[in-house]
Amino acid sequence: APQLDGYFQKVDELSDKFIDRLRQAVAIPSISAEAARRPDVVRMGQFLADELTKLGASVELRQLGKQEGTDLDLPPVVLARYGNDKSKRTILVYGHYDVQPAQKSDGWDTEPFELVIKEDGRMCGRGSTDDKGPVLGWLNAIEAHQAAGVDFPVNLLMCFEGMEEYGSDGLDELVYAEGKGFFADADAVCISDNYWLGTEKPCLTYGLRGVNYYNIEVSGPGADLHSGVFGGTAQEPMTDLVRVMASLVDTEGRILIPGIAEQVAPVTPEEEGLYDSISFSLDTLYESLGSKTTIFDDKKRTLMARWRFPSLSLHGIEGAFSGPGAKTVIPAKVIGKFSIRTVPNMEIEKTNEAVIRYVEDVFRKLGSKNTLKVYPQHCGRWWVASPNHWNFSAAAKATERVWGVKPDFTREGGSIPVTLTFEQATGKNVLLLPMGSSNDGAHSINEKLDKRNYIEGIKLLGAYLHYVAEEPMN
Amino acid sequence: APQLDGYFQKVDELSDKFIDRLRQAVAIPSISAEAARRPDVVRMGQFLADELTKLGASVELRQLGKQEGTDLDLPPVVLARYGNDKSKRTILVYGHYDVQPAQKSDGWDTEPFELVIKEDGRMCGRGSTDDKGPVLGWLNAIEAHQAAGVDFPVNLLMCFEGMEEYGSDGLDELVYAEGKGFFADADAVCISDNYWLGTEKPCLTYGLRGVNYYNIEVSGPGADLHSGVFGGTAQEPMTDLVRVMASLVDTEGRILIPGIAEQVAPVTPEEEGLYDSISFSLDTLYESLGSKTTIFDDKKRTLMARWRFPSLSLHGIEGAFSGPGAKTVIPAKVIGKFSIRTVPNMEIEKTNEAVIRYVEDVFRKLGSKNTLKVYPQHCGRWWVASPNHWNFSAAAKATERVWGVKPDFTREGGSIPVTLTFEQATGKNVLLLPMGSSNDGAHSINEKLDKRNYIEGIKLLGAYLHYVAEEPMN
Ligand SMILES: [Zn+2]
Ligand SMILES: [Zn+2]
Ligand SMILES: [Zn+2]
Ligand SMILES: [Zn+2]
Repeated sequence: APQLDGYFQKVDELSDKFIDRLRQAVAIPSISAEAARRPDVVRMGQFLADELTKLGASVELRQLGKQEGTDLDLPPVVLARYGNDKSKRTILVYGHYDVQPAQKSDGWDTEPFELVIKEDGRMCGRGSTDDKGPVLGWLNAIEAHQAAGVDFPVNLLMCFEGMEEYGSDGLDELVYAEGKGFFADADAVCISDNYWLGTEKPCLTYGLRGVNYYNIEVSGPGADLHSGVFGGTAQEPMTDLVRVMASLVDTEGRILIPGIAEQVAPVTPEEEGLYDSISFSLDTLYESLGSKTTIFDDKKRTLMARWRFPSLSLHGIEGAFSGPGAKTVIPAKVIGKFSIRTVPNMEIEKTNEAVIRYVEDVFRKLGSKNTLKVYPQHCGRWWVASPNHWNFSAAAKATERVWGVKPDFTREGGSIPVTLTFEQATGKNVLLLPMGSSNDGAHSINEKLDKRNYIEGIKLLGAYLHYVAEEPMN
Repeated sequence: APQLDGYFQKVDELSDKFIDRLRQAVAIPSISAEAARRPDVVRMGQFLADELTKLGASVELRQLGKQEGTDLDLPPVVLARYGNDKSKRTILVYGHYDVQPAQKSDGWDTEPFELVIKEDGRMCGRGSTDDKGPVLGWLNAIEAHQAAGVDFPVNLLMCFEGMEEYGSDGLDELVYAEGKGFFADADAVCISDNYWLGTEKPCLTYGLRGVNYYNIEVSGPGADLHSGVFGGTAQEPMTDLVRVMASLVDTEGRILIPGIAEQVAPVTPEEEGLYDSISFSLDTLYESLGSKTTIFDDKKRTLMARWRFPSLSLHGIEGAFSGPGAKTVIPAKVIGKFSIRTVPNMEIEKTNEAVIRYVEDVFRKLGSKNTLKVYPQHCGRWWVASPNHWNFSAAAKATERVWGVKPDFTREGGSIPVTLTFEQATGKNVLLLPMGSSNDGAHSINEKLDKRNYIEGIKLLGAYLHYVAEEPMN
């Protein structure tokens, strides 16, 4: 096992400095969704570049051109390399330096762009946990190694973007282009931009669901109609659309479309045993849900439903009346929006075909004179990595060393599209190594990162690099 | 039969002057929906008051206080009396001097607030047919009588409001308050604010459907959720709502709620015969619909569906995603909006009870843990007058005299709530006497009033007053 005590001790000694670094970063309101904040996003990228340069990394601010459909420059991607020793392994890490919008008036207890440290250790501020804390974690790990005089165990490639919260405009192209370029010697990838499953136990994440997003358009009249004049004489697109949407899924979340369940990988007896040991309670779910309106009331079925089974959600309808109050309109054209979260071994094309066939069939049975169109709006594949890869076993050993407990191996219900991009662009194993905990409130008011998670998280990132350097390549 | 030739001739002689009066009125952009246009609405009321005063009427501009929820003064109601001869009958007429919003950039061929007269006789401009032409019709009738030296056959009470296109804020209270006051000696009421059923044949309108407007609220989670994290584990309010909405009505417009059809007055053999003679073609319907997506393909069933059977329209959903693009939200609380057009002998309370019982029943069968609320948002009763009343027979005789054809007796599918208000406040028969034709485009771009309809309409309003004066009170 690697010698880590000197490094750990230095992280503790420097903790005030590391918190101050996070304070400086949170103070920059790098909101990628707001055009007026674009200079702050750029300033945040520059802050990272300056800090990295001071630490001895070689840094490039890569320009990505204009934001799609605007005249606005995209913020640069910070590409950095720390160490270039051919005898060491090379680890590529990704993070983002932009944040979600936030205003005190949204309901924050404190100023969102001021890091406020509470007595219980919560460090509140926009971006604290998503994703400035983890990004600075890598910088702090470098600094603590230098201060402790401990040789850095790997070459570190860094890719920090500034548009993650607003669609990662331009990033995919760069990652694919640099797969055999700047990222060419990466042996594995590590992304710290997700969260523990609960609040107490660390985890490593090896799977994400994909998402296929669909539009169902029903149109008839040439323009919106008045329901007084036309109600009872015209076939109404809303009537048809709602009937089609009602046929997709039921209250218990069962997808009623044939050809979906058939594609799902069967649960193996080995997998059956994995869920019991995972630290997760229904109470945590009720708390995050804000209600007890769950489909299942047991841990195992809930986790399986979130991680390894598909789900279908109806998001809304475009073109219908959606304001408060009353409007007696018969909408002429309505577009129902729904998505299916996908899992192994579902195929995008096969799923699209099943959806389109079924929706067209249900509509045909209505016998309507209206016109139907159904099509996917965007599709992103699920991702599952091998948790037996040395990248994961190194992270597991590091976790046990820092937190004194074996991490849970988890999957997530949502998508982090960049994960698949890095896997495909580099052809290497990707590990999701979270720093924050499930109640950090990443996109909510009062976002926080616990001081404990930040400081131990810095230790964990450094320790992971040491174990990665030593782990046999299986 | 009354002597009308001198009056008719004078209307023709003065037609340029009457068109000029309409031109002046159209030039005032009295848009009640736009706060910034409120001074123009007031100016339009003042214009009417001035014109009426010049004609010798006694006029009052009645202030109604502030617009609900704003600091804006409501435009005044123009209350006027022309003639006070106890030996004459008194007719109360209603109209509105405000208009719908309009901008050239909406797609108008000409400036909306400039009356442009086309070669084919179309007089284009916002408010030309709705409702400035008809309102000025009464003023023009007075002027032509004076110019022709023909005694005005009745006392005329006028009530012209300036908020009709934005909810008639404050009008009901005034009408009820003046029922035994300013309106006390009215023998009948005439409203010219609707349209011919088609484009060639005049009609008299004696019925309107009512409308009950409902909200169905389904809520569960404490806040909107991310479908990646919660899809498959939470019972989704949208799923339940869409299933409930799908159970209300089918593609053929059949209302699936028990207890509605049972309240509808049966079709009598006498009524069966009324529809054949009415001037209405499916082609007109296809044109106004902009498609052929009708429920029926014959005149009789179409007119019955519009006039004398209830209909149910789904208007939209509040709280769900309604924008363009994709959003992977699970809405926490969604409010479905629908309305039922009501007809004789449906009762508001009985209908509400049937709706609430049915919706609650459908929801209960879903077995959902979410919470349902269903309630009427507003309810307005249907209205049917007796077309055998002397008010109607006078208007029928005047129509035949002016247009050379017996009018169709029609009903409408929509509501004109003020009709019922005047009936209830005065206890007198109300006649709807349209001036414009079905393709005038009242609330659309390129609104127009045909010159023929305006000039013959002025004759018709005057002639109606003469016949009303002579008709035996049956
Ligand atoms: Zn993030
Ligand atoms: Zn985020
Ligand atoms: Zn009107
Ligand atoms: Zn109108």
